[in-house]
Amino acid sequence: MFKIIPINGSITAVDGFYASGVKSGFKKDDYDLGYIYSENLCDVAYTFTTNKFQAAPIKYVLANNIKQTNFLLLNSKNANAMTGKKGIEDIKELLEFTKEKFNKELINPIMSSTGVIGVRLDKEKLKKGIEKFELEKDDKKVARSIMTTDSYEKEIAFEVTLENGEKFRIGAIAKGAGMINPAMATMLCFVVTDANITDDKQELLKEVVETSFNAISVDGDTSTNDSCFLLTTKKAGYEKEAFKEALRLTLQKLAFDIVKDGEGANKLVAFDIKGAKTKEEAQKIGKALSNSLLVKTAIFGEDPNWGRIASTIGASGCECDEEKLKISFENILVYDKGEIYFDKEIEAKAAKVMKKDEFRIICDLGLGEGKFTSYGCDLSYEYVKINADYRT
Amino acid sequence: MFKIIPINGSITAVDGFYASGVKSGFKKDDYDLGYIYSENLCDVAYTFTTNKFQAAPIKYVLANNIKQTNFLLLNSKNANAMTGKKGIEDIKELLEFTKEKFNKELINPIMSSTGVIGVRLDKEKLKKGIEKFELEKDDKKVARSIMTTDSYEKEIAFEVTLENGEKFRIGAIAKGAGMINPAMATMLCFVVTDANITDDKQELLKEVVETSFNAISVDGDTSTNDSCFLLTTKKAGYEKEAFKEALRLTLQKLAFDIVKDGEGANKLVAFDIKGAKTKEEAQKIGKALSNSLLVKTAIFGEDPNWGRIASTIGASGCECDEEKLKISFENILVYDKGEIYFDKEIEAKAAKVMKKDEFRIICDLGLGEGKFTSYGCDLSYEYVKINADYRT
Repeated sequence: MFKIIPINGSITAVDGFYASGVKSGFKKDDYDLGYIYSENLCDVAYTFTTNKFQAAPIKYVLANNIKQTNFLLLNSKNANAMTGKKGIEDIKELLEFTKEKFNKELINPIMSSTGVIGVRLDKEKLKKGIEKFELEKDDKKVARSIMTTDSYEKEIAFEVTLENGEKFRIGAIAKGAGMINPAMATMLCFVVTDANITDDKQELLKEVVETSFNAISVDGDTSTNDSCFLLTTKKAGYEKEAFKEALRLTLQKLAFDIVKDGEGANKLVAFDIKGAKTKEEAQKIGKALSNSLLVKTAIFGEDPNWGRIASTIGASGCECDEEKLKISFENILVYDKGEIYFDKEIEAKAAKVMKKDEFRIICDLGLGEGKFTSYGCDLSYEYVKINADYRT
Repeated sequence: MFKIIPINGSITAVDGFYASGVKSGFKKDDYDLGYIYSENLCDVAYTFTTNKFQAAPIKYVLANNIKQTNFLLLNSKNANAMTGKKGIEDIKELLEFTKEKFNKELINPIMSSTGVIGVRLDKEKLKKGIEKFELEKDDKKVARSIMTTDSYEKEIAFEVTLENGEKFRIGAIAKGAGMINPAMATMLCFVVTDANITDDKQELLKEVVETSFNAISVDGDTSTNDSCFLLTTKKAGYEKEAFKEALRLTLQKLAFDIVKDGEGANKLVAFDIKGAKTKEEAQKIGKALSNSLLVKTAIFGEDPNWGRIASTIGASGCECDEEKLKISFENILVYDKGEIYFDKEIEAKAAKVMKKDEFRIICDLGLGEGKFTSYGCDLSYEYVKINADYRT
């Protein structure tokens, strides 16, 4: 058996990784430009957004078919999306500049961006920031440098001890908050490890992303920039199940952080869908629930309005049957195969469940074996405020 | 050529129709139970929600395959949805009761409901209300009796004069406000006419509903109760194009009213999608835009954040190409096939467009002939408030 222990830090908790951030003036007084550097050349795997208008940084990685790298340049406040060929030229110029200025040899450097869509990068300002880079191990700074409307840094690290005594570490940072309905990965996530992964990294990453980042939704909007990178130096131990479990814990923690820090969100709700006709239908229903404005506002109002849950399931386009469906707020059953259990007492109990910061809503379709858990949050006045005022 | 003239009233503007409402105690001091009665037996056509959990009133009509009727019983505050077989029994009992108490012979009476999902009807209270029905022509009362979170009655009537001098009239009421993403018809709409429709009523209704009610969205949630009824006494003139045009004007006006009265909404926005690969894709993109929280909050903030529009198009799953797309706020072009036109001056002009109560956003995909116009509204604090507090 393997053993997974949480450790401090994130990126630089893994041997040979450096990371930091600088204030280049895009945020009032916070880090907005950062980097991840590895002494060792890393194998890299990635999952990107399914949005057809992929941002320039994603196009750049795909066009250059980058499989190994030792450097990531990260910026926030500008997504470099919808910027066409010029957006890609800007990346080239900035990475060339970084190669000249950074005090180490950079191999296939990558850029990753988040922020407003449809605005060219301010290269001069960014270059002044890049000139300030120093070789540091400062996880907080790099984690802050990718934040947009996030209210706190999202980072995590584990040390895994394998049965044979060998060890590896995994560390990651992420950012989220809005435009979160990842159809591939979250807005931005960077995972580093020294595990000597011998299996298909891309497959492993994709599989774990599916039940972590791809299971969350803040607002149903799939970003142009969603990216999840996995870098490995391959210098340490490896065992498939142990690594997958560590990766799962890592991504799930960050995915939960993103939902909990969802713009204006106060509650993390797990929608446990089971008994669906297929896994795909369970996923579709889970996503429909976590995206429904009426469900989200009921959660904000702490109102166990199960009718809205039923209505959303019915509208999902998936197979469902009123006489087979069951709906519970945790262990409080409110609807059971055509029977409504919703007197004042049960309503009060269900409302009590909803007062918690985190709770589960369980929907059993009673049709088949399909199951999926999706994660969503409430929709508050604050979400509207943040997004009405985003650019101003 | 035919001539269409707006006239006062709605249901009772058509010869032989009576309608009214009573206060049966479900609302504090407003009409919550109403009826539409016709002296003449009417042919009836209807379109219903695509939500798989159709409410009991819809199941009742379908199960009884009702093709002719002279009476509709209408109630608000309770949708009679997710109430199973008991919900249908309740309808039977209430319609039998109405038959006994109403001062006219009722043939195949129909019930139609809107309100909270998942609660049995309070039959005793409803019966007391039914006992108060009097034969009246009061369009305001019946229009108010179907309102839930609507802030005003939605009604309209036209008189159409055909080329041969014959006439017919059409009148309608509707209710909307929330849970509006009709995949069949709006929440509730009742159209009456004396036109001697000789074409397929069902087909006509379906066709016109497609570009009116099915083109609007307040919150992307498709209700369990969406119903649009068309009743005709066939006592007057008819000409297909004239009738279709009158029906189109009728349903479009009511659809716009529903969006404008969308919960917490302040603006009516038309998304003109053209150049899409197919009409279906244009429709999908239009709907995606009118449902996007980020687009809706940008509209609320009067922020011409065209990047969110692009991102939503890219995430819609439809074919699109950054190098072919054009986006305009009315006549202000902000993005043209890879070129961004968004300096301070243009941004100010686009922002000015968004300050209007009604405006168009035009997206030309540049790929084909597919076009569709969808109608949406902004997402305000008020929407959240209304829906967080709905049941309390």
